[in-house]
Amino acid sequence: MILDKVNSPGDLKCLNLEELNTLADEMREFIIKKVNATGGHMGPNLGILETTIAMHYVFNSPVDKIVFDVSHQCYPHKILTGRKEGFTNPDMYFKYTGYTAPEESEHDIFKVGHTSTSVSLACGLAKARDLKGGCENVIALIGDGSLSGGEAFEGLDNAADLASNIIIIVNDNDMSIAENHGGLYKNLKELRESKGKCECNFFKSLGFDYIYVDEGNNIQEVIKALQKVKDINHPVVVHIKTLKGHGLKQAEQNKEAFHWIVPGMLDEQQSAPTVLPEDYNSVTKEFIMKKARQDKTLVVVNPATPGVHGFDPEFRQKLGRQYVDVGIAEEHAIAFSSALAKAGAKPVLAIMTSFVQRTYDQISQDLCLNNSPLTMLVYWGGLSNADATHLGSYDISMISNIPNIVYLAPASKEEYLAMLEYSYNQTEHSVAIRVPNTELISTGKKDDTDYSILNKYKVEYEGEKIAILGLGNFFKLAQDVKDEIKTKLNIDATLINPRFITGTDDELLENLKKNHQLVITLEDGILDGGFGEKIARYYGNSDMKVLNFGGKKEFTDRVPLEELYRRYHLTKELIVDDVKNCL
Amino acid sequence: MILDKVNSPGDLKCLNLEELNTLADEMREFIIKKVNATGGHMGPNLGILETTIAMHYVFNSPVDKIVFDVSHQCYPHKILTGRKEGFTNPDMYFKYTGYTAPEESEHDIFKVGHTSTSVSLACGLAKARDLKGGCENVIALIGDGSLSGGEAFEGLDNAADLASNIIIIVNDNDMSIAENHGGLYKNLKELRESKGKCECNFFKSLGFDYIYVDEGNNIQEVIKALQKVKDINHPVVVHIKTLKGHGLKQAEQNKEAFHWIVPGMLDEQQSAPTVLPEDYNSVTKEFIMKKARQDKTLVVVNPATPGVHGFDPEFRQKLGRQYVDVGIAEEHAIAFSSALAKAGAKPVLAIMTSFVQRTYDQISQDLCLNNSPLTMLVYWGGLSNADATHLGSYDISMISNIPNIVYLAPASKEEYLAMLEYSYNQTEHSVAIRVPNTELISTGKKDDTDYSILNKYKVEYEGEKIAILGLGNFFKLAQDVKDEIKTKLNIDATLINPRFITGTDDELLENLKKNHQLVITLEDGILDGGFGEKIARYYGNSDMKVLNFGGKKEFTDRVPLEELYRRYHLTKELIVDDVKNCL
Repeated sequence: MILDKVNSPGDLKCLNLEELNTLADEMREFIIKKVNATGGHMGPNLGILETTIAMHYVFNSPVDKIVFDVSHQCYPHKILTGRKEGFTNPDMYFKYTGYTAPEESEHDIFKVGHTSTSVSLACGLAKARDLKGGCENVIALIGDGSLSGGEAFEGLDNAADLASNIIIIVNDNDMSIAENHGGLYKNLKELRESKGKCECNFFKSLGFDYIYVDEGNNIQEVIKALQKVKDINHPVVVHIKTLKGHGLKQAEQNKEAFHWIVPGMLDEQQSAPTVLPEDYNSVTKEFIMKKARQDKTLVVVNPATPGVHGFDPEFRQKLGRQYVDVGIAEEHAIAFSSALAKAGAKPVLAIMTSFVQRTYDQISQDLCLNNSPLTMLVYWGGLSNADATHLGSYDISMISNIPNIVYLAPASKEEYLAMLEYSYNQTEHSVAIRVPNTELISTGKKDDTDYSILNKYKVEYEGEKIAILGLGNFFKLAQDVKDEIKTKLNIDATLINPRFITGTDDELLENLKKNHQLVITLEDGILDGGFGEKIARYYGNSDMKVLNFGGKKEFTDRVPLEELYRRYHLTKELIVDDVKNCL
Repeated sequence: MILDKVNSPGDLKCLNLEELNTLADEMREFIIKKVNATGGHMGPNLGILETTIAMHYVFNSPVDKIVFDVSHQCYPHKILTGRKEGFTNPDMYFKYTGYTAPEESEHDIFKVGHTSTSVSLACGLAKARDLKGGCENVIALIGDGSLSGGEAFEGLDNAADLASNIIIIVNDNDMSIAENHGGLYKNLKELRESKGKCECNFFKSLGFDYIYVDEGNNIQEVIKALQKVKDINHPVVVHIKTLKGHGLKQAEQNKEAFHWIVPGMLDEQQSAPTVLPEDYNSVTKEFIMKKARQDKTLVVVNPATPGVHGFDPEFRQKLGRQYVDVGIAEEHAIAFSSALAKAGAKPVLAIMTSFVQRTYDQISQDLCLNNSPLTMLVYWGGLSNADATHLGSYDISMISNIPNIVYLAPASKEEYLAMLEYSYNQTEHSVAIRVPNTELISTGKKDDTDYSILNKYKVEYEGEKIAILGLGNFFKLAQDVKDEIKTKLNIDATLINPRFITGTDDELLENLKKNHQLVITLEDGILDGGFGEKIARYYGNSDMKVLNFGGKKEFTDRVPLEELYRRYHLTKELIVDDVKNCL
């Protein structure tokens, strides 16, 4: 096996073209096998395989610096930079992350998992090099949809101005996670069709030198192009056309489904689709479809993550012009939706917690300052075993401290539907709903709460001495804690479902003082800046004791959820221990 | 006076060209007089005057929708839309804000004050129109530097894809607040020089139809262009070359100084520059200049706001390649600086509180997750009488709940210098310093604190019963409160200068329990998600009472600071009243 001889990029340089091609085949096989076993990004890594070999053949990493955008397409890079065991040895499959990670290798410069950052980061490396008098190449590898993010443009605009070496490799596979949208992608198409020769050229307009490579999955062609730009003394874009999923038939044919796959996807037998159990995604889709049929101004807005929300191609097609995928452009998604609402349409914006972080200012200025009645659905909020780049536990602290927005945390299907209905029909507030990331919980009882009365918490059980506020995802835990307190401490605790994240129910909190001595708060997110601290502040001048339970402000990286729950005292046993110590 | 006859845009339509030109002269005179009296945006409004008249002559606002980017260039628009008294009558000078404000007029669609948002907002209006079957024109007026912001690009990319009417007017005055930077502005220059005919055209590359207007301060020429695009059925860019400060010699000649002026700037006599008193800007500049001479890898990074920091042209010139203005591109500024730091250079990033909001995700992902040792100076943090669009009171809640970053709040010149020195020399953390927005306070005593020992608060005076934590700007207030408590309550309170915003000094807080019964926190920002709540959470399970003082989570709009202090109980008298009630 050629791969046996390759332990670092330097080892590539003595291989001939035939060997490089054989190496590509070997790597492809390992990637397919590994990703199918563990789940992960399949299409992006197969598409970029040959380019990665060519990059490491031509350049001299880690002296030359390669910055991967999103870095979900770094698997071939990992194989070539001393981490092949993570792909060849099933026992090591989980040793390395799916993203670049400086702690793993000197060939990884940044920890990256969000899109559109590589050009800015490369600019910084290039500027530092120039100040220090170095002469290494600085390369940003961007593409697979991430060019549409504003940060990428800010980076390109500045990179073009650099009077020295910076090489932007655009991996153009004509795809984002789903299909691409936007004027830029039309230009890329024209460039591909004219083999880089059409009159309008986005990159040239910004002042970049430009090279087009039509066969981006042909190692020899990519090597030729990169050799031309190596040690170049000015900014250049190398536009490489690749095939997402290259070399795996299913992935080539179904690019969206194979962008990121669950384990075993290749092994699954073709069978008639079974009826899927109801979950929060299906409930959401059903609500949207029903409303969309009644009201032609309902528009679903989504920044390039339809899969997360279960917005499958059939659903999107049915919605037609009432579905807008704005591409990877979260800032635009917020401003666009705000204006839709302002103009009397009914936008429903679906966005992931980890990516809503890209829109603080837009939520504040474009949305909340204008009080646009948007319905924003925030998915995957909560502690998780995710990569450090994709944590979902910061949304409460980010969103809930912005004025005017109403951020809601439903604890059941019925509450969720009532909140959707409320948000959809009202015109007073920007409303965000934290879609539960739990299994679907149904009370079986319609929720007839009037959510227009803001910040009214629901007392689910009136007890004494201890009051438990269990927010959204953690309401179930609060119920368990209540039972545990009864068993262990023989106290009949009060159980409260706050539902409103963005404000305190002062009347209720005041009343609790009468026959309670301890309030505990449970939230599925970090404590800093979160819900519980507001309760602690409220009771600061009183005799009421307050215990806040939630996550710690830290970047956790693929830590199993059970371990996080232990670490943060988020099991009923640990919580009741803390309660005992406090009484 | 022609202006006497103009009370709404409709009144323009019966004027002939000569009358329109006279009207422009009248409006110019009023704008100059008013802005010189009150302070405000001079150059931008003089530059856009003729275009605004042409827009309202050709289009039919408020049926046709005009969205102003940043909206600091909306003064002529306000004059033409029923608010001329705000310019002609000195008693009414302060009646209207300097930005578009829907509460003032149906011709203002959004409250806007941050850049780069207009295209996205216009996209939303256009999409809503299409869903509702309307046929009005939707116009975004962008320019004066704001094209470089990522949100603008995301908007353009999506606007170009719209299959219906959207008109983007690019006001190209070759300036940002200071000079422009970046590849895009080179392209605009080529387009101006070729009168719109050069081969590379940024807007066409995105798929826009395109019209160039060389004489953007000639009403007739702009009218002709706008008449061509009125009721167009596809996306079009009208690129208009204007002269910033048009018609006011000083403003034409010194575009940067006249972008925004203080009252009376035109009246000032030419005189030899007097020696300015020392302030936090001068201290910062001196520190930077000293270090820059010693270390050629120091780079000052700034997103287009040099004036805020006192980075005058002389200072910038002296720094040469060690000064990088990235243009209005805050996201890039963070990622770029993070990479500079990672590569061993010494970035010092200067940014305004209100605009740091544009970078939550970049601070989290590009910077903190990578622990890049950046020095970030955050200016103008604190409560203020600013417009709702430019509040500086949200930075603590935004920045301090992100992991890894060390956010420092100095209370004196000496602490500030020691923190700068610490941050500059260390390589462990991303450090942000909240540059005091107070007058310079000097203790006269060098601060020799070792800031590498994180979260260590300084006990300035050891008393009993009550402990006062006065953060940064509010340390002075804490001193006053201490004295007031002595006078009114005869209690010798403990005085603490926390200095670290991002963490609690648990040892100190624990020790306070011994002989204190109340801790009060003072912070110059909103309470929600802020510093004080962390202290309240810490003491939640104890008998210690806690009172948090700070601002309320709300958009205040030009409310005098004294009123805010009263509203939030931020005077020593009101604080001591609350303390009395709590004891």
